[in-house]
Amino acid sequence: MSLDSLHDLFVEELRDIHSAERQLTKALPRMAKAAQSPQLRQAFERHLTETEGQIERLDRIFRELGTRGTGKRCIGMEGLIEEGKEMMQEEGDPAVIDAALIASAQKVEHYEIASYGCVRNYAEMLGYKEAARLLQQNLQEEEATDEKLSKLAEGGVNEAAMAGAGAEEEEE
Amino acid sequence: MSLDSLHDLFVEELRDIHSAERQLTKALPRMAKAAQSPQLRQAFERHLTETEGQIERLDRIFRELGTRGTGKRCIGMEGLIEEGKEMMQEEGDPAVIDAALIASAQKVEHYEIASYGCVRNYAEMLGYKEAARLLQQNLQEEEATDEKLSKLAEGGVNEAAMAGAGAEEEEE
Repeated sequence: MSLDSLHDLFVEELRDIHSAERQLTKALPRMAKAAQSPQLRQAFERHLTETEGQIERLDRIFRELGTRGTGKRCIGMEGLIEEGKEMMQEEGDPAVIDAALIASAQKVEHYEIASYGCVRNYAEMLGYKEAARLLQQNLQEEEATDEKLSKLAEGGVNEAAMAGAGAEEEEE
Repeated sequence: MSLDSLHDLFVEELRDIHSAERQLTKALPRMAKAAQSPQLRQAFERHLTETEGQIERLDRIFRELGTRGTGKRCIGMEGLIEEGKEMMQEEGDPAVIDAALIASAQKVEHYEIASYGCVRNYAEMLGYKEAARLLQQNLQEEEATDEKLSKLAEGGVNEAAMAGAGAEEEEE
């Protein structure tokens, strides 16, 4: 694909984030399974449902543009998920692994925040009002998820990780 | 490495961002070279100097912790840089490529914002005051760079990309 116009870049970046979201729907169940904290597990499960809705919004935009959303593999998200997998395979205290899972998830969320910020701006400039509205919704959901993860970290997960080996396990 | 404590995770995440920053020092000159807008080129060049300073701060933290910063390859940043390279290899209008470079760079900045946010919080919890201060500085620099890139996009680069093929070229 040749990037001859902002419209071309818009479609290219939309395909990138579409691929990123689809990859994430496969990673989130693994992350939920690896989480020890019930709140964290629930947060990942909820974000999976949210992610599926975000993909539907992207599909709606592609339909309006009269083009396909597939055909691109997001290498950025691939690396982020690979990094998260590495973390999940580490041995260690379950509470520390939870903290690590949050760090991985926040990197993923920030990828999406950057991406949706860009494509929303392109849509606005291009006068694609409905697309801009849908992308703004996705952006806000990613920002809310990032904030929720921060709250989980600060509201107990990091403290449990501080408390050291097995501390959280005993609570269950 | 076994993640038995928050300290272990802190060191692991520090090594990750250290590797990420070192990879970035190699990518930024290529990005500067690919940029057509003089302001964007300058922004990349300045951020290279900043990144070198950030690595020095990380090295200082490793010395204080009595450990090494090397030995880990940040796969997340590897993917982001690979994705940026793909974008740079696309054919197209130079002004559109500039907009694409900004999008790539903002994904990189957001990776670092997420990462520094986490390690700064760990340092605070662990009572590593000097490390927390240095990491806060790095975080603020990344946030400022992200904001600057947004301003460049909104302040002309996206508009030049809208104007279509060769518009920016003629201005030079």
